[in-house]
Amino acid sequence: MRMTARPENRHQARLLRLLRDEGPRSRAELGDVVRLSRSKLATELDRLVELRLVEPAGLAASRGGRRSSVVRLSPRLRFVAFDIGATSIDVAVTNGELEILGHVSEPCDVRLGATAVLDRALDLLGKLRDEGLLPEVHGAGIGVPGPVSFREGVPVVPPIMPGWDRFPVRDVIAQELGCPVLVDNDVNIMALGELHGGVARSVGDFLLVKIGTGIGCGIVVDGAIYRGVSGGAGDIGHIRVDDDGPLCACGNTGCLEAYFGGAALARDALAAARAGRSAFLAQRLAETGTVTAADVADAAAAGDPVAVGMIRTGGRRVGQVLAGLVSFFNPGLIIIAGGVARLGHALLAEVRSVVYRRSPPLATGNLPIVLSELGETAGVIGATRLISDHVFSPA
Amino acid sequence: MRMTARPENRHQARLLRLLRDEGPRSRAELGDVVRLSRSKLATELDRLVELRLVEPAGLAASRGGRRSSVVRLSPRLRFVAFDIGATSIDVAVTNGELEILGHVSEPCDVRLGATAVLDRALDLLGKLRDEGLLPEVHGAGIGVPGPVSFREGVPVVPPIMPGWDRFPVRDVIAQELGCPVLVDNDVNIMALGELHGGVARSVGDFLLVKIGTGIGCGIVVDGAIYRGVSGGAGDIGHIRVDDDGPLCACGNTGCLEAYFGGAALARDALAAARAGRSAFLAQRLAETGTVTAADVADAAAAGDPVAVGMIRTGGRRVGQVLAGLVSFFNPGLIIIAGGVARLGHALLAEVRSVVYRRSPPLATGNLPIVLSELGETAGVIGATRLISDHVFSPA
Repeated sequence: MRMTARPENRHQARLLRLLRDEGPRSRAELGDVVRLSRSKLATELDRLVELRLVEPAGLAASRGGRRSSVVRLSPRLRFVAFDIGATSIDVAVTNGELEILGHVSEPCDVRLGATAVLDRALDLLGKLRDEGLLPEVHGAGIGVPGPVSFREGVPVVPPIMPGWDRFPVRDVIAQELGCPVLVDNDVNIMALGELHGGVARSVGDFLLVKIGTGIGCGIVVDGAIYRGVSGGAGDIGHIRVDDDGPLCACGNTGCLEAYFGGAALARDALAAARAGRSAFLAQRLAETGTVTAADVADAAAAGDPVAVGMIRTGGRRVGQVLAGLVSFFNPGLIIIAGGVARLGHALLAEVRSVVYRRSPPLATGNLPIVLSELGETAGVIGATRLISDHVFSPA
Repeated sequence: MRMTARPENRHQARLLRLLRDEGPRSRAELGDVVRLSRSKLATELDRLVELRLVEPAGLAASRGGRRSSVVRLSPRLRFVAFDIGATSIDVAVTNGELEILGHVSEPCDVRLGATAVLDRALDLLGKLRDEGLLPEVHGAGIGVPGPVSFREGVPVVPPIMPGWDRFPVRDVIAQELGCPVLVDNDVNIMALGELHGGVARSVGDFLLVKIGTGIGCGIVVDGAIYRGVSGGAGDIGHIRVDDDGPLCACGNTGCLEAYFGGAALARDALAAARAGRSAFLAQRLAETGTVTAADVADAAAAGDPVAVGMIRTGGRRVGQVLAGLVSFFNPGLIIIAGGVARLGHALLAEVRSVVYRRSPPLATGNLPIVLSELGETAGVIGATRLISDHVFSPA
């Protein structure tokens, strides 16, 4: 497989990203946006055609004079996404415009270790290749459920990923696929997915809060992921709610994650079921032998007051932490995502209520707090956005 | 006064900032840094000389061949800083390299209102002009103690600045001085001061926490101030410490500022003096009729256990809030500044202890937490850095 061509300068990079985000465009339309002279634009586009990144696509409707020719990204372009979660793998293939051409998903325990999980991910990609979706690969983006050294492409002491610490994920997959690869935290790629094709599409500065088994936050500053000086930014699950809370896996007490998130919610639900405080949860326990965060959502939907109370209390604590982050960061949007986000509007109402009450008016005057609309696909779209930003930048 | 020249392109801007930050340099040295061809570099420098922004300054020592000529910023360049605090005005004049040529300061209550305070600031500038320090003015930076719409150059609903809401500070001063003017929050300009000439000089991502009468935070991302979508970023004084704390001026309970900061500390010190819990503070009350945050510092320095306890408790609460921000933002450095920072190492020790214990290891592995070394001059240096970044960028 030959190496992917890259744009030679920032004008070419800009044109590629425009064609990725806006689809096929006439030369006249592109000229309006990039502010290059007609001859310079023609030179850059011709070069992109030579590099097989762009191709002609007929003539545009007339704007009054000679009809302008349309160009589009090469339909042979392919990006690959691996979204590795705590308990699942999602693999997808997109075209250059990041439209999903194929998407497979299966349960997989990340604790099986890097080699086993990545082998499984490559097997899933093989399925998509067998369907003819992958004539070439121009880049792959990978999300993993833990902290990542983005520069090195390795997980760093990831708490729920035994056997992955400093495993060279990026280099192993790059070697395997023969294309550029980037690795990032799963919450960061979800944020990029929302930026690309979700509710954050026109927002430069926003937070994506993922409430799954754990709780994390993707931070977007000026249209790009902010990772902090050592890649640890957004690790909000261990922010203190108060001093007297439950013991957290991190060794401190009163962390947000020890109060809320999938694991804490399941723990509280199991206690409520065993104590007979919730008939709904007790019945679910009797039927299945356990209760999960999803059962709490079902119980709340059925009007179970204990479950509703758990969601309200959890939402209030999430709101307390987010109120502080809003005071500090003054984002333009907060998106709530992840499994627990399925608790839906009861959770959202509580989060909003606390943030709007506790954060300064200047910061909340125009601050939507919404649920993700992309759901499961945010991660894979974000992973291809990540790698396409890289491939569509000067080498 | 004629309008200030501005660089015509980003190469010229880069050269001006290099000469500002590094001082006079030979053409050969500049060529090494900016990666322009010798002839292109000569063209850009000649143009800057024509614009009277740069001038020749003799020959450099030989590097083996022909001696390279040295250039420097025009010694006629002048930037002005107005650092308006709650209870003081600082006015300074610098050269193009942001070296302070003159600095005057006097007590002034910001509550006198915009017109009175700005008139006073201009009078102080007149003193410096009378000393011959101001042949021309090429730009002025202004810091004010409240939230600012940076784009519009106006304070926005500033809590401690009655009569300033949406007053056109930028435009009034620009009109008066006939030069470009920018207005920002006082904490942001302190952060820029530390970035330019303080402990943050080589740090791209850091926080400056000012603990004065109130508590605020300057956020630097990738070498530039992060202001948030509506200019409200860094307003950390009203982050919740707990639900059962004292009532805050903002109407909520348990805000950091209601626990700590100059005003809260003075309140607690007065209570301790009146109740006779601290002999030192009671004596100070008897002598002066009141006690202030500065008295707490004196008492602690004299070994008064009540004062030491107040600093420790306050430091712990500041640390709790900062620990959350470190988890979220993963900065490369935290600088503690402002009046209460004079409480010094007892405060710092407590803040460090909480942050290092409560934030994730990935975020604290290499996180210095230090006191400001610039002190009073951080604000004026930052104000001239702000405006010089603007003047030294393409028009």
